[in-house]
Amino acid sequence: MAATRSGARVDGRVARGNETRRLVLERAVSVASVEGLDGLTVGRLAGDLGLSKSGVFALFGSKEDLQLATVRTAIRIFLEHVVHPAHGLPHGMDRLWRLCDGWLAYSQTRVFPGGCFFYSAAAEYDARPGRLHDTIAAARRNWSSFLEQTLREAQQAGEARQDADRAQLVFEICALMEMANGESVLHGDDACYRMAARGILNRLRDTATDPALLPADRA
Amino acid sequence: MAATRSGARVDGRVARGNETRRLVLERAVSVASVEGLDGLTVGRLAGDLGLSKSGVFALFGSKEDLQLATVRTAIRIFLEHVVHPAHGLPHGMDRLWRLCDGWLAYSQTRVFPGGCFFYSAAAEYDARPGRLHDTIAAARRNWSSFLEQTLREAQQAGEARQDADRAQLVFEICALMEMANGESVLHGDDACYRMAARGILNRLRDTATDPALLPADRA
Repeated sequence: MAATRSGARVDGRVARGNETRRLVLERAVSVASVEGLDGLTVGRLAGDLGLSKSGVFALFGSKEDLQLATVRTAIRIFLEHVVHPAHGLPHGMDRLWRLCDGWLAYSQTRVFPGGCFFYSAAAEYDARPGRLHDTIAAARRNWSSFLEQTLREAQQAGEARQDADRAQLVFEICALMEMANGESVLHGDDACYRMAARGILNRLRDTATDPALLPADRA
Repeated sequence: MAATRSGARVDGRVARGNETRRLVLERAVSVASVEGLDGLTVGRLAGDLGLSKSGVFALFGSKEDLQLATVRTAIRIFLEHVVHPAHGLPHGMDRLWRLCDGWLAYSQTRVFPGGCFFYSAAAEYDARPGRLHDTIAAARRNWSSFLEQTLREAQQAGEARQDADRAQLVFEICALMEMANGESVLHGDDACYRMAARGILNRLRDTATDPALLPADRA
């Protein structure tokens, strides 16, 4: 009985710790997307959420650990919003377009209040070596690789030209997506999402074996 | 005589102040391009340069004034490296391409050690209202407007198609330039400059009345 009661107490503490951790990280991704990962401090997050600084500190340890946990949380949210919705779609050009369209919606609807989390984080840590840099760089490489893989599958399905330069096409469509995000957040104007979608659809039509596989414009 | 001597002393102090200001701002643009404008403090810059903190503080006042002076210095350096070299060139598609090529070289040769100053600064301040945001946003708008004007002149010179969507084309070429900068700084790899140049040249050839007005590839 005593052991069970003590076990329940431990379980309760672990559950509360996990819940606090979740709350802190949810707040942290929002703050970091607007003010940067450097803007994250245990004291600031504890204050924002009305928690004790020592309690939050015990959950994360160093500032860098908090920042890394924040990046990993942002990756999970990105996958949920952009990548997972495409899982059931058949291989082909429409799947590739829907991933791009999902990215534009993820940026435009401000899943993170400061726009795409990885756009800001990459610009902040691109020239600063270390674990944060490496985690952010890997997340961006994974996204590019996933788009290249999707294009390869479209080629195998006979919907994309065999001579398409996959790295070049993915570079160009990512450039258009990121430009839309950057311009929209900077100037508070949504017209750039239409321009990005138009540019991406032009590139995808040039690559498709049949341009009619792609919509005329963004829905 | 006394007035003259006192005048010379004042002139000497002003000259020394200007020289110190120049030194501090030169260091400030380098630091900010790597660590962000938030990384700038009077104390840190004074320490880096072996100057007295109070002397540097007297020249700039608030941290925001120092940051704004840093952005203005970066604008001057950008104009010198990217815009001024095109001044003597005749209106047309080659002038537009040379501006893009100059931008790629400015990023690739790391005129600022952290890559394009405005890429980092825009990502840092895009979602934070205030004078810094407005100054950075205006600088980026001016660059886009200048490219659109250059394209309009190419149309007037009969070298660009009259039905070209100027805003769309400039959006797309800026997207490619910025993507090259971001990827190169993040991954420490220069291949993205070739991809950006290829993408830009493809867009410019599609827009030109004669594709032979553009080089086959980046020199």
